Amino acid sequence: MAIARGYAATDASKPLEPFTFERREPREDDVVISIKYCGVCHSDIHQARNEWGGSIYPMVPGHEVAGIVTAVGSGVTRFKVGDHVGVGCFVDSCVHCASRDLDTEQYQPGLVGTYNAYEADGTTPTYGGYSDSMVVKEGYVLSIPDNLPLDRAAPLLCAGITLYSPLAHWKAGPGKKVAVIGMGGLGHMGVKIGAAMGADVTVLSQSLSKKDDGLAFGAKAYYATSDAETFKTLAGTFDLILCTVSAGIDWNAYLSLLKVDGTMVLLGVPENPVPVHAFALIGGRRTLAGSMIGSIKETQEMLDFCGKHDILPEIELIDIKDINEAYERVIKSDVRYRFVIDMATLPKA
Amino acid sequence: MAIARGYAATDASKPLEPFTFERREPREDDVVISIKYCGVCHSDIHQARNEWGGSIYPMVPGHEVAGIVTAVGSGVTRFKVGDHVGVGCFVDSCVHCASRDLDTEQYQPGLVGTYNAYEADGTTPTYGGYSDSMVVKEGYVLSIPDNLPLDRAAPLLCAGITLYSPLAHWKAGPGKKVAVIGMGGLGHMGVKIGAAMGADVTVLSQSLSKKDDGLAFGAKAYYATSDAETFKTLAGTFDLILCTVSAGIDWNAYLSLLKVDGTMVLLGVPENPVPVHAFALIGGRRTLAGSMIGSIKETQEMLDFCGKHDILPEIELIDIKDINEAYERVIKSDVRYRFVIDMATLPKA
Repeated sequence: MAIARGYAATDASKPLEPFTFERREPREDDVVISIKYCGVCHSDIHQARNEWGGSIYPMVPGHEVAGIVTAVGSGVTRFKVGDHVGVGCFVDSCVHCASRDLDTEQYQPGLVGTYNAYEADGTTPTYGGYSDSMVVKEGYVLSIPDNLPLDRAAPLLCAGITLYSPLAHWKAGPGKKVAVIGMGGLGHMGVKIGAAMGADVTVLSQSLSKKDDGLAFGAKAYYATSDAETFKTLAGTFDLILCTVSAGIDWNAYLSLLKVDGTMVLLGVPENPVPVHAFALIGGRRTLAGSMIGSIKETQEMLDFCGKHDILPEIELIDIKDINEAYERVIKSDVRYRFVIDMATLPKA
Repeated sequence: MAIARGYAATDASKPLEPFTFERREPREDDVVISIKYCGVCHSDIHQARNEWGGSIYPMVPGHEVAGIVTAVGSGVTRFKVGDHVGVGCFVDSCVHCASRDLDTEQYQPGLVGTYNAYEADGTTPTYGGYSDSMVVKEGYVLSIPDNLPLDRAAPLLCAGITLYSPLAHWKAGPGKKVAVIGMGGLGHMGVKIGAAMGADVTVLSQSLSKKDDGLAFGAKAYYATSDAETFKTLAGTFDLILCTVSAGIDWNAYLSLLKVDGTMVLLGVPENPVPVHAFALIGGRRTLAGSMIGSIKETQEMLDFCGKHDILPEIELIDIKDINEAYERVIKSDVRYRFVIDMATLPKA
């Protein structure tokens, strides 16, 4: 066992605080990672505060992990000491399951979350990336291209793949008109990746306050959804709409912006169900779909794509002691565009 | 002008009654049809009773029309006197529209409904198939294969294409598991057509009262949705679910029966919007879609398919004087499986 330092929530109602815990001895197929940076995802907050129920405490959040390999098990073939690597939302899956499809493993039973979960043994809790080190099975470690700085690469492991996967699955590219609802941590990655794929990207944001950024990130157009005129102007316009907001907006109004055979993909989960008018779908053979992160295979594909196109999230680097304040700012959407914790700021043991 | 006899609603609250009106003189591109049979669709009732708003009176309903050609305009090339023909839900569309795609014309602007609509001139009302004759542009007339009796062929023009189109679009066929929700006029056609396409079809009906019929029509399995066990047994089972019911059922429960990447297609329009949980879609990259009838091209393809496979709706043939009673029975789902009016029973002038 090795001692790890991190930050943990000990209870749904308490702020995160320094926490010392154990990481397992590396097995034959394990990679040991010195974590340098970890992104802050809104789902870290939901889980730390038990807003989805069933939280396991103490909880070390963090699933946008970027670091450097410090040791490898004897059976590891794809990584060596010094490699730049990442870990995303899961660290194991049901490899023996007959139905396991490597292209859709994130939707199969048996996934083990990077934190707030138990290992396949059912008893050992997993601890996430708000910590100095991690021991992860080789098959769940991603290679980060050398041209991507680790601090900015970290949010690719969740925010990046969450947008890349639906853009790739629904074939965003030249000639396709894509809209991104919301210009936050997820949305701004949708703009950058969608534009790099060659699609014509429009941002649909509550206000025009981030318009200059959106256009700089590659959007061709930017509309305020607080302006009713937007929905008239853009009716029947898009092949694909990616909805990154988890507020309970009126999906029917956005469905009306799709062309015949267009698809709107939900990436955020509103707290309450949203009423859907059948005619909003039937009237144009439109589809409402959902998408959740991506497979390990696709996550690597995304990292390679971002390396090739120099795509990086916009971040605010923070000290880990400021994590609780950062959570409050995430809730108020007061971040451009993703907080990333500098793990060098962890208090020494 | 020619005088036509039919049955019309003169007001939202009155029963249908005999009605005499004019059909236009055939133009160069028109086909004159002696109507032999017309199916009774639930949407006839919604429109006759102004339940969707904006109804035009007097209204001659009927868009499942089967008959025999009695005359053709000089420019007509595809039909001759004596041909068996059908007319479905629309009799004109915006042929000059740049965006018109023959494969999706039913979703494009400019469609002219077979009844309860106005011709492209904006002032001449259209009258439907509860009548003895009809004058229709050649491009909107369908050829009914000779081996299909006209009385049973009539409901193919709406119920048949409404099911064929999503089955074809979402590629039902060998190896695909398809569920049909509801065993009424639409649902029973989904079973017959889906099975003929080679798909493994399951019926999801409120009770098991029509189970023998369902299996005889080609279903491999039949489950009662009133039994909560059904939803446990069938979780994650289907590639495609066609929802033919317009009652406000819990779509989320049915979405849980889809495999990863499965699609549920809405064919009926519930009166009120239905609450959808984002996670029901996100958890398996599932999609909720809608589909509405089919293009003229696809409707002909469907008729040819039904001719080749001897697929026919199950009908109850009625006298037109019993139409109001039939409407009440449709509302109570008391019909196996579609009423068809025998137009020989129209009162003489």
